[in-house]
Amino acid sequence: MPHKLLVASELVKQEGRRRLERYAEVFSSDGLDREKLLALLPELDSLIVFFWPKFLTAENLAKMKKLRFIQSILVGVNHVPFEALDERVVVCSNAGAYSLEVGEHAMALLFAASKRIAEHHLRIREGNADLASFAGAAKEMVVLEGKQLGVVGYGGIGRKVGDLGAAIGMRVLAYSRRRQKARGVKFCYGAAGLENLLRSSDAVVLSVPLSNSTSGMLGERELSMMKEEAILVNIARGDLVDQRALYEWLKRNRRAVYATDAWWFREGHETLSTDYPLPSLPNFLGTPHISGLVGLLSGRPAELAVENTLRYLRGMKPRNVVRRAEYLSQAR
Amino acid sequence: MPHKLLVASELVKQEGRRRLERYAEVFSSDGLDREKLLALLPELDSLIVFFWPKFLTAENLAKMKKLRFIQSILVGVNHVPFEALDERVVVCSNAGAYSLEVGEHAMALLFAASKRIAEHHLRIREGNADLASFAGAAKEMVVLEGKQLGVVGYGGIGRKVGDLGAAIGMRVLAYSRRRQKARGVKFCYGAAGLENLLRSSDAVVLSVPLSNSTSGMLGERELSMMKEEAILVNIARGDLVDQRALYEWLKRNRRAVYATDAWWFREGHETLSTDYPLPSLPNFLGTPHISGLVGLLSGRPAELAVENTLRYLRGMKPRNVVRRAEYLSQAR
Repeated sequence: MPHKLLVASELVKQEGRRRLERYAEVFSSDGLDREKLLALLPELDSLIVFFWPKFLTAENLAKMKKLRFIQSILVGVNHVPFEALDERVVVCSNAGAYSLEVGEHAMALLFAASKRIAEHHLRIREGNADLASFAGAAKEMVVLEGKQLGVVGYGGIGRKVGDLGAAIGMRVLAYSRRRQKARGVKFCYGAAGLENLLRSSDAVVLSVPLSNSTSGMLGERELSMMKEEAILVNIARGDLVDQRALYEWLKRNRRAVYATDAWWFREGHETLSTDYPLPSLPNFLGTPHISGLVGLLSGRPAELAVENTLRYLRGMKPRNVVRRAEYLSQAR
Repeated sequence: MPHKLLVASELVKQEGRRRLERYAEVFSSDGLDREKLLALLPELDSLIVFFWPKFLTAENLAKMKKLRFIQSILVGVNHVPFEALDERVVVCSNAGAYSLEVGEHAMALLFAASKRIAEHHLRIREGNADLASFAGAAKEMVVLEGKQLGVVGYGGIGRKVGDLGAAIGMRVLAYSRRRQKARGVKFCYGAAGLENLLRSSDAVVLSVPLSNSTSGMLGERELSMMKEEAILVNIARGDLVDQRALYEWLKRNRRAVYATDAWWFREGHETLSTDYPLPSLPNFLGTPHISGLVGLLSGRPAELAVENTLRYLRGMKPRNVVRRAEYLSQAR
């Protein structure tokens, strides 16, 4: 019996499929009608997914007795329904696949926030034609050179952010679960390390996966530790930050800025609709979770997903295996 | 007879004035009434100015027979009325004084433009809550790593921009009048060099002074040489770019972006009012000439102006002497 693999995303192109076909019988969800697809599920050994496919309900997953491997094309796996998966199923994230594009986007948000680019552009666009009226705003602008950049999470994206921060002359302090070493970067560990990072950094970039242990990790207590004029950049997932606490922190600290590419989940989906009127605040800067899409356009995420699946198919240890316990019973 | 110096800006603080007093009798325009000020003019040997003082009209300048030295606290000297100055007057710019703050601002504009930060933020702020509607926009976003950054003008600010560009992994090509060398930077010279830079760069930063030879240096012909999706950053002076040609270029090339901190002069003053509705274009990004103000807050420009004036007073060759011919008869 050959290994049966379902590719549930059009992002894996012909060439990738051909490479996979040397080790498995490869099916494409977009090439099968619903009946055939459902009939195939119990025979499948592995899956490559992007967004979680709607047809893979808990009920249908229960029928997939042979399933042992899932490769995500997204870097995060918080969209995977771990509760409905047999614990023998190995789930792999796609860490590193988007590091360049997402890391650059984090720097773009940091630079834009530090110089209040969007806020000033908006005022000019609305017809404020008096140059002198902006003079006071210079006091709110932050010079990045010499300031401390705290990087929370040192995976592929965190590393890229740390490298870019050090390159432009910032002092970089990174929080990591694992012991790490990197040129121009200091590391801290554990709860005390994170607290120190939040208290001492001029800018903080969030680049951790959303999991049980990170959901809501920045609440009222943590935000209140931060400097009044801190810039908080979220390049990972909206739900790392407690929305209500954030809203109150930004209202209270006019000089603090929250700059994000990631938004909160509502009913299982990320949405630009917020529970509090964050986008109306002058110190909130948002982009529409677009950095990963730029990475996708490079083709690299799908390529790396294929590479890692090939490792699994050839009996090698796949990369980026996620710890199931960190994602069980998580409110998505 | 002691040397008489008039400090015509409050930016030079007590400590700076004390240092100057060791070599000259120092007057402050804000400490003198109009009558005394006018009586003093014929006796003055030197001046430190920020914006050009209103009382220094052509008529009053004609009375200043002893004047031999003017130090600008602004980096540019296009505000100095060279036509009304005796040719024996040495005029010094303040090159280098704002390099850090203005260089970082240039990078902030470049990053913001490359990721369309302000454009997307604005759409979200206007209530566009549909994440999916932004998917197509990813194609318009530019990854900076590996792309070519053309730096036009390699003074203090140009050098800082080149350093930052190389640090984030861009290939840097700089246009300079003088032969230069710098790690990670290639140089080009002359009209052919500039043309090659414009044709081959993915992003161009303007960091030249506004003078006879640079006013309107980017007109229809030069803009049409540039890549369709080029990002043009102006961190120097609005009038380097022909406003009408720019408007037409941006209308024609939806993927090109013009990101500027500098605005055009009208009746001798820089203003956010434009002759063409540039700020309404989605590919125009503007900040209110604020980068220099951030530099001013550091106190460094006034300090460096004092340092250079001290060099002159002590008989040393002052730095940043400008070539008078480049500023004569210039439409300001």
